[in-house]
Amino acid sequence: MTTNSSVQVSVLGLGAMGSALADALVKAGYATTVWNRSPEKADDLVAQGAEAAATAGDAVRASGLVITCLLDHASVHKVLDPLSRDLAGRTLINVTTTSPAESRELAAWAAHAGVTYLDGGIMAVPQMIGQPGSSLLYSGSADAFHQYKPLLDLWGTSTYFGTDAGLASLYDLALLAGMYVMFAGFMHGAAMVAPAGVTAGEFAALATPWLTAMTGAFQGFAAVIDGGDYAVEGQQSLHFSNLSSLLAASSDQGISTDVVAMVQRLIQRQIDAGHGEEGFARIIESIKQPG
Amino acid sequence: MTTNSSVQVSVLGLGAMGSALADALVKAGYATTVWNRSPEKADDLVAQGAEAAATAGDAVRASGLVITCLLDHASVHKVLDPLSRDLAGRTLINVTTTSPAESRELAAWAAHAGVTYLDGGIMAVPQMIGQPGSSLLYSGSADAFHQYKPLLDLWGTSTYFGTDAGLASLYDLALLAGMYVMFAGFMHGAAMVAPAGVTAGEFAALATPWLTAMTGAFQGFAAVIDGGDYAVEGQQSLHFSNLSSLLAASSDQGISTDVVAMVQRLIQRQIDAGHGEEGFARIIESIKQPG
Ligand SMILES: NC(=O)c1ccc[n+]([C@@H]2O[C@H](COP(=O)([O-])OP(=O)(O)OC[C@H]3O[C@@H](n4cnc5c(N)ncnc54)[C@H](OP(=O)(O)O)[C@@H]3O)[C@@H](O)[C@H]2O)c1
Ligand SMILES: NC(=O)c1ccc[n+]([C@@H]2O[C@H](COP(=O)([O-])OP(=O)(O)OC[C@H]3O[C@@H](n4cnc5c(N)ncnc54)[C@H](OP(=O)(O)O)[C@@H]3O)[C@@H](O)[C@H]2O)c1
Repeated sequence: MTTNSSVQVSVLGLGAMGSALADALVKAGYATTVWNRSPEKADDLVAQGAEAAATAGDAVRASGLVITCLLDHASVHKVLDPLSRDLAGRTLINVTTTSPAESRELAAWAAHAGVTYLDGGIMAVPQMIGQPGSSLLYSGSADAFHQYKPLLDLWGTSTYFGTDAGLASLYDLALLAGMYVMFAGFMHGAAMVAPAGVTAGEFAALATPWLTAMTGAFQGFAAVIDGGDYAVEGQQSLHFSNLSSLLAASSDQGISTDVVAMVQRLIQRQIDAGHGEEGFARIIESIKQPG
Repeated sequence: MTTNSSVQVSVLGLGAMGSALADALVKAGYATTVWNRSPEKADDLVAQGAEAAATAGDAVRASGLVITCLLDHASVHKVLDPLSRDLAGRTLINVTTTSPAESRELAAWAAHAGVTYLDGGIMAVPQMIGQPGSSLLYSGSADAFHQYKPLLDLWGTSTYFGTDAGLASLYDLALLAGMYVMFAGFMHGAAMVAPAGVTAGEFAALATPWLTAMTGAFQGFAAVIDGGDYAVEGQQSLHFSNLSSLLAASSDQGISTDVVAMVQRLIQRQIDAGHGEEGFARIIESIKQPG
């Protein structure tokens, strides 16, 4: 029988996120070794029962499973490049935020060094680790994912996308894109009502349930996109979704129209191409095919 | 005692939305008179127990409460202008989508004609009327709102914003702006993962809970905005939210960067103005003050 304490794991990088990840492992009874460039960040974890390694090399050699949660791709190379021999034969799970190209580069580097590589993307803030709503995305070695899934599940819902190590980062960035754009939409709405004396808090009280309800439209759009026919019945047409009244009302309020004009351009390009009677999902074509 | 059947209400405009509104009234037992330019659209409602009026004037004269749900501002004037004398002394609730300026113009027109005016905005599609998630926004006459609230509540959650008749439309457009921008963000994410063989449905399965969870950030942004100090501790700074990796990954996937570049410009304007260490909520200033 494998108990958690028989699994040796090392965490390199104890910033806000790395500390939260290591903390969850220590609390679950894993034999956890920790290392951070600025060593004092290990103190709290050591008090909880973690082992502090004096060097990154000591940390790598302590465990069969090495987790990196550093600032960026460059810092991962900076820490691991001198340790490729020590890493050989071990499993590396890198949850540092990287681009798909960087994740693939690290996977190739690891393959060359004889290291089993799993790439991760964290869709949560540190306080959410181990809480409902925390989601982590993985791609790369299927064996590593399945072997360590019980450990990974401590942090949040674990989803595996396939052996291409770049996939988790790609999903990560695609979800972050959706988030940032939604935030801009919220800010635009709050800016529209502000001149009428409406506080952002009052607007958020309506916008939170409204946009939550409207996420319910995504699967319908997806069915149209995946079906390959944007002209299916029962949809709001692009002509109907003309945003000129939104732009006019924004101008009347004295605010920038940039945010909504971006959506209007996506719509207009499809109308100009003769697709005005097709459904709103068609705007994805304005994104898929740069103008 | 007032029973629903003692309240006379007329609905003018039986398109997709007007029919849904009238249907809810008939089902709740209100004495409902209906009128539509193309008269055959009244047939189903008459079969359910509504009274059909031969002319818009007959419909107005039949009830103390007149509801208009027509195509747009121009069609409301087209139908009501010849009937201002008949409308005098009655209550008009207009749920046609109009801009704030148009709503205020109709309120002034109604005041001049001696008509009590309440403006409404419908945050729902016809199938949602009377279902959970349906939300209707009102502004204008407080008396009309309070007197008819039990009737209005049949359609969805009713929220009243104040006596300025333009407020409901303004909120309506602000919420629609948020929705359209969020939809563009979803489409961008789906377009990013598509070249990796990920279907829009697979992406929607992740994006729906993710963006739902991220609406949870709105109140935090709002607290910062309403607090007036974007530099409060514990926030993600604008420097952190630099979206260059998102733009680069989008380009790598061969798709347009227009959607995320819009957000990046909002961020960059604030960084350029020296606010890079402040929180993400600061981007609302890029919208409030057109460049
Ligand atoms: N925080 C979040 O909300 C969040 C959410 C999702 C993903 N992430 C990702 O998680 C990763 C870590 O984020 P974080 O919030 O923990 O960041 P952080 O608090 O800024 O910590 C950065 C970590 O990287 C280390 N580091 C930086 N440069 C280094 C170098 N050249 N050599 C060795 N160590 C170096 C730092 O060590 P020192 O302590 O010595 O500076 C520190 O441990 C990032 O890739 C981030 O994008 C974070
Ligand atoms: N459907 C939605 O999802 C939705 C959601 C929120 C708000 N709304 C708003 O609700 C209102 C009605 O929408 P809808 O979906 O019911 O539209 P619709 O199905 O297109 O119906 C339009 C209605 O307006 C009438 N009309 C148009 N021009 C007219 C004119 N010049 N004179 C007299 N009647 C005229 C039409 O009469 P005919 O039948 O004779 O053409 C019909 O009754 C719009 O302002 C819309 O923005 C709709």
